[in-house]
Amino acid sequence: MTTRRQLLTAIGMMGGTAALYQAMTTMGHASETQYKGAPDLSGARSGASVLVLGSGLAGMLAAYELSKAGYKVRILEYQNRAGGRNWSLYGGDTYTELGGATQKVGFAQGHYLNPGPWRIPHHHRTLLHYCKAFGVALEPFIQFNHSGYVHNADAFGGKPVRYREAAADFEGNVAELLGKAIDQKALDAQLTSEDKDKLKEALRGWGMLDQDMKYKANLFSAEHRGYDRPPGGGVDGAPIASQPFPFRDVVSSQIWKNMAFFMNHEMQTTMFQPVGGMGMIGKAFARQVQTMITFNAKVTKIHQDKAGVTVTYADTASGSVTEATSDYCVCAIPLGVLNQIENNLAPAKKSAIAAVPYSNSVKIGLQMARRFWETDDYIYGGHSFTSQDIALISYPNYHLFEDGPGVLLGAFASGAGAYRLAGMTPEQRIEAALAQGSVFHPGTYRKEFQTGASVAWSRVPWTMGCCARWNEETRKTHYQELVKVDDRVVLAGEHASYVGCWMEGALLSSLDAISRLHKRALEA
Amino acid sequence: MTTRRQLLTAIGMMGGTAALYQAMTTMGHASETQYKGAPDLSGARSGASVLVLGSGLAGMLAAYELSKAGYKVRILEYQNRAGGRNWSLYGGDTYTELGGATQKVGFAQGHYLNPGPWRIPHHHRTLLHYCKAFGVALEPFIQFNHSGYVHNADAFGGKPVRYREAAADFEGNVAELLGKAIDQKALDAQLTSEDKDKLKEALRGWGMLDQDMKYKANLFSAEHRGYDRPPGGGVDGAPIASQPFPFRDVVSSQIWKNMAFFMNHEMQTTMFQPVGGMGMIGKAFARQVQTMITFNAKVTKIHQDKAGVTVTYADTASGSVTEATSDYCVCAIPLGVLNQIENNLAPAKKSAIAAVPYSNSVKIGLQMARRFWETDDYIYGGHSFTSQDIALISYPNYHLFEDGPGVLLGAFASGAGAYRLAGMTPEQRIEAALAQGSVFHPGTYRKEFQTGASVAWSRVPWTMGCCARWNEETRKTHYQELVKVDDRVVLAGEHASYVGCWMEGALLSSLDAISRLHKRALEA
Repeated sequence: MTTRRQLLTAIGMMGGTAALYQAMTTMGHASETQYKGAPDLSGARSGASVLVLGSGLAGMLAAYELSKAGYKVRILEYQNRAGGRNWSLYGGDTYTELGGATQKVGFAQGHYLNPGPWRIPHHHRTLLHYCKAFGVALEPFIQFNHSGYVHNADAFGGKPVRYREAAADFEGNVAELLGKAIDQKALDAQLTSEDKDKLKEALRGWGMLDQDMKYKANLFSAEHRGYDRPPGGGVDGAPIASQPFPFRDVVSSQIWKNMAFFMNHEMQTTMFQPVGGMGMIGKAFARQVQTMITFNAKVTKIHQDKAGVTVTYADTASGSVTEATSDYCVCAIPLGVLNQIENNLAPAKKSAIAAVPYSNSVKIGLQMARRFWETDDYIYGGHSFTSQDIALISYPNYHLFEDGPGVLLGAFASGAGAYRLAGMTPEQRIEAALAQGSVFHPGTYRKEFQTGASVAWSRVPWTMGCCARWNEETRKTHYQELVKVDDRVVLAGEHASYVGCWMEGALLSSLDAISRLHKRALEA
Repeated sequence: MTTRRQLLTAIGMMGGTAALYQAMTTMGHASETQYKGAPDLSGARSGASVLVLGSGLAGMLAAYELSKAGYKVRILEYQNRAGGRNWSLYGGDTYTELGGATQKVGFAQGHYLNPGPWRIPHHHRTLLHYCKAFGVALEPFIQFNHSGYVHNADAFGGKPVRYREAAADFEGNVAELLGKAIDQKALDAQLTSEDKDKLKEALRGWGMLDQDMKYKANLFSAEHRGYDRPPGGGVDGAPIASQPFPFRDVVSSQIWKNMAFFMNHEMQTTMFQPVGGMGMIGKAFARQVQTMITFNAKVTKIHQDKAGVTVTYADTASGSVTEATSDYCVCAIPLGVLNQIENNLAPAKKSAIAAVPYSNSVKIGLQMARRFWETDDYIYGGHSFTSQDIALISYPNYHLFEDGPGVLLGAFASGAGAYRLAGMTPEQRIEAALAQGSVFHPGTYRKEFQTGASVAWSRVPWTMGCCARWNEETRKTHYQELVKVDDRVVLAGEHASYVGCWMEGALLSSLDAISRLHKRALEA
């Protein structure tokens, strides 16, 4: 099959630029999603049944759509609630992690921590479709905030600076250096004389350079990086410029990582969150399928043969063991858990299930007595980044401007930092989050702290990890084996997608899995 | 007085970088605002009175604070409503412009056009303070949207592209070119060997270059510019990269202007808007001072002498002429109107009043039957920019995801484009906005259009222009003359500030003006 890109390249070579743009318009712009609308799966054979394992979003979507298609659907869920990693912790909730530590969450009414997903890109069309269909109200999630701080132990004497200051200085210096290189004829092989003039004009305007193509302390650069005294009113209204940082510090701060982060397709504006916490989505899905769910059901064995699928499960309260049977099975259990369940799946699929490690991640919610980041620092939503283990603190996007407490995300750690935090007690994690987060708000952070909660995903009993981490090699060897229908069983979840660690991946995987399973069932 | 910047520069020279950052922390970061909290103006002399001319935000804030300080305050307002340029047009409203054309606004319930201010920067602390004090609910205004389109007649064959595509390509090419220049030793005078290595690493990561420092079609660059086929789930989950644009087109598109725009201090995230339209702010201010306002009062003469201030005004309905007297006067009338009012202000102040031209600007609201920009183009808030007269279209930041109609901003023209649109009838303006805006949404724009409204500020009877446009020369010659207290009279408004054309400028100007007037009154 000729891909759109191959076609466009061919058109470009044959017809030149004008033809290329003509074709672009005819064909539409770069695609934003693989979602093609809710599936049409009508016409299930009478009496055909499906067992769905796991009531995360992938499992519940499979159950919802297969049930609509005419299948008899039943869901087995290990926990006493639906939603899986789509989950919010509220005041009054209790959570016990692997290792036995139990936290009683003490957040004020209306405040929460989202331990798992917490933001929704505008191009995650499957999720947005079902949010609307199932009545989940969404509000903007402020992702990009020029006022957030960046902190790197190796730059600026270890002091945090505003994103705007460092980013403006990075752009200004890059523009000045490239302008200098152009003047020194270093790029004459690449650029015509007209190109050079136009590019220099662009660099001057983008980088806030002066007429001599220099990036300096003046009211021009201050428009981007901020002022020592901002413009005001009346007699003392005139602004005073600020002093750019030394470029060596700007580069050492790795501000470019933050700049690139905000340009990542999945991080680009506009982003959203459900009103009231991410867990509202899991609850809305659960309302659609609640009569199908058996809770507290720990799956211990998955067996398929010519007659059908038999799943053995134990009631987590009573310990009593039951067998459930069906014609087909959608297994939406995370791979690390599934890998420990006895099954007779094909060897290549078993290898795939075992091959994909899960990332760790630690999130910590900290309730502060007042929203000092708004009143004192003028930060509304967005993040402050640090080279410390907590990686960032993120400011809440709800109850803006309100008096009273606010819950901020005090850590979103991954990699080695996450393992260090996961190795601590919940109390030690809070202490570490307070110690490290204080770098951004030194006078207030500890003073205003009231109560906190943490989730270390390596210690979550029902996933034992955060989400699947594929690499180029495992994709090549195992991905197609993992996703293909194995007789009567198909896997679904973010692990069976290229949108790993996102709810959208779970949903797109689920739609693809059930479409193929339905086709196989009709052909049986 | 040594400025903070001078001090920091001195510290930097003496103590080196570490001392500089130490000082930064001690003194706090670059300042975000000149607002120092609500003023404390208590202790007015018993019976002292102030006439405030104009009930825009500057006038109403002056009245509110002077009244609290103990002055007897009265406001004269030309229109039959308070708020001035803080104004929203709703369905059912009628508006007659200079020239006589009358528009009856037909927007659906709950939708509006903000002819004047429409977005609030997070560092406009004065405005945010009084919004909270007066009970104005705010919601996020999505300013920066990577999914918005950019259109320039001179690039991409005249077709719009997504901001993300052009911005990613600009950054990628700039990074590649600078990397090349570094390798060609063009910058060896500026950069040490270690600097070069670190900068190349930064350019690679920021510009999404490959290991050979090239910006190419691959999954790395696609992470920023988007995909031909984005990542998905199941069998066909693997993404396909998109093809970067020719750099010559990217530069010709002037995407760098948009990139620089979003880095402007006043355009940086987070921005806000009042729930229900910008006019909610004017209404909230008006609730505080409503008993003081005389509406339909056209000021025709301002006279001051040793005894006090006498203001002559005509009732715009009956034509009857009245004189009002007071001890002092805060004049918040726009300069173009004030310049036509007989007065005995000092000659230098008269010159200043006459010296500052007002910008024009045209805004057009277009109601569409459905929010196709969201459902079809995945654009939630933000802007699409064009080199045509309309300059941009902006997508509404309220009622997101809803079915039913939406009102978008179909033009925010300035300069020559604004004069061309202002010269048209309201019907012709709508037609021009539809014709030009269709470049972004060719299949749907005209088809979904229902009703529109426009405001050309050069034709607004009570301002005859949008806002004051100072330049370096007029600032030097006239600014201090304009703002200084002239015996019993002081001017207030955005024109008397360095935050021109923003509500914050009007408020900061007002606070500064009344503080000085109060001081003068106590010294009298």
